[in-house]
Amino acid sequence: MRTYLDCLPCFVRQALEASRMATQDERVQRKVLDSVMVRLSHLSLNATPPAIAQIVHSLVKEVTGNPDPYREIKKKHNQIILDLYPRIREIVSESDDRLRSGIKMAIAGNLIDLGVQTDLGDLEGSIYNAFSSNLTINNYDEFRATLMHSDLLLYLGDNAGEIVFDKVLIEEIKMLRGMEIVFIVREKPIINDVTMEDAEFVGMRELTRVVSNGSDAPATILSQCSSEVRDLLSKADMIIAKGQGNYESLSKEDGIFFLLKAKCPVVARDLGVDVGDTILKRNKMKN
Amino acid sequence: MRTYLDCLPCFVRQALEASRMATQDERVQRKVLDSVMVRLSHLSLNATPPAIAQIVHSLVKEVTGNPDPYREIKKKHNQIILDLYPRIREIVSESDDRLRSGIKMAIAGNLIDLGVQTDLGDLEGSIYNAFSSNLTINNYDEFRATLMHSDLLLYLGDNAGEIVFDKVLIEEIKMLRGMEIVFIVREKPIINDVTMEDAEFVGMRELTRVVSNGSDAPATILSQCSSEVRDLLSKADMIIAKGQGNYESLSKEDGIFFLLKAKCPVVARDLGVDVGDTILKRNKMKN
Repeated sequence: MRTYLDCLPCFVRQALEASRMATQDERVQRKVLDSVMVRLSHLSLNATPPAIAQIVHSLVKEVTGNPDPYREIKKKHNQIILDLYPRIREIVSESDDRLRSGIKMAIAGNLIDLGVQTDLGDLEGSIYNAFSSNLTINNYDEFRATLMHSDLLLYLGDNAGEIVFDKVLIEEIKMLRGMEIVFIVREKPIINDVTMEDAEFVGMRELTRVVSNGSDAPATILSQCSSEVRDLLSKADMIIAKGQGNYESLSKEDGIFFLLKAKCPVVARDLGVDVGDTILKRNKMKN
Repeated sequence: MRTYLDCLPCFVRQALEASRMATQDERVQRKVLDSVMVRLSHLSLNATPPAIAQIVHSLVKEVTGNPDPYREIKKKHNQIILDLYPRIREIVSESDDRLRSGIKMAIAGNLIDLGVQTDLGDLEGSIYNAFSSNLTINNYDEFRATLMHSDLLLYLGDNAGEIVFDKVLIEEIKMLRGMEIVFIVREKPIINDVTMEDAEFVGMRELTRVVSNGSDAPATILSQCSSEVRDLLSKADMIIAKGQGNYESLSKEDGIFFLLKAKCPVVARDLGVDVGDTILKRNKMKN
């Protein structure tokens, strides 16, 4: 997906949020915004939004000297959702169609995105609302059928906190059939995206193999991925990509199952849905 | 009021909105954003937000070559509210305390602000909601008492459309007592702020004297005002200032009655209220 003009003010806003996470010093925050605005004025919008977000957030890290501004908030989110885990597990385990419920829960978990919103608010209520609402795009039958014929599944993770929901879905998939599942995380901290540290913290590594993708983009930018991950991507029978960042970076790739909540007008327009809609979409390119 | 870091992404967003009003050419819109971001990176935040907005919107005009991007939308808003005028007049005329109702209606009219929102939505409903809700800061008794002892009232206008509500309040004031009333407009087009053309269009000039302030800031920046307007400001017994822009530029001046709806978090925080709250505040400086 290309970057739209609407993304520019949003990047400035994100830079402000991130710089406030990184430092209390308002002069440094101002320096971040100034560097970001000048840099944005020179960037091509042909890049995807997460490719530009990567540049923006690397400036935040560079100017503030803080390599991981979201470290504490990520830990907090992981812990909050881990505390909710028994309740999430119970809802999924007691449902009629556990795979469907696991998918819907994984999408509901995508509402935790500090690139877009900072206030967790009434989290449990929001999660339950998202879980209860209908998917606007729903390729569930294809998801299930593909899963049943796959031997290698790649699951591209998204955010801290959300990763606990991903665990629930992966547990459901593992219960359904034996297959190799690889959960992919970002190489280095970027916004609140999952890294190996988060996978460790929430127990994802005890559940399945976790591989770091070699890139610190808040997305899966193929040219930045390690050869190991590119190899896995080409061999996989099924790819699940969580969240907006992965969608923005992979929307031109064929066959991927995108699980996300459309949180911004630009992504919603690209998907042909409304902001707030929940999506399970198998990408089909035109021939 | 000083400018906060939160204002910077908002200025970029405003520049995008304004450039889209000014031209359909996305390359030109991009040029506007680039110029604005580079310019913002060099500006001191000690200036008030409208002083910076003035620079931002002058860049929009300069880069797009369109001296009045909001011309059509202003006309449209003026006409929409003129069409609602009989209903607004009826509500105020039939109320128990007509002055109070006129004030509340003038504040309700302040919700029309394209610097902040572009969708008029269910306008009549929003106006009625704003009219029916209680003022969060309410210096009405002081307003009435001051009015009763004033011979020269200056009324600092704000936006197109909204000016029709101002007419209703000025009609009420004129019915209450004979006094000189001068309605002040911006000198040149800036966002959707009222100019002489709008005052003419809605019949304000038939009702009272209208004077242009000599400045194209979306506010009342004293150092930019004509000597005539500065003279009027110093002689006036009572000054009514509508909207956020006038508040932001005059919040350090004593005795002014501010009528506004707090539409952004920064102004709301400065006033100690919540976003969406409606305000009738007499400014009192600490001695």
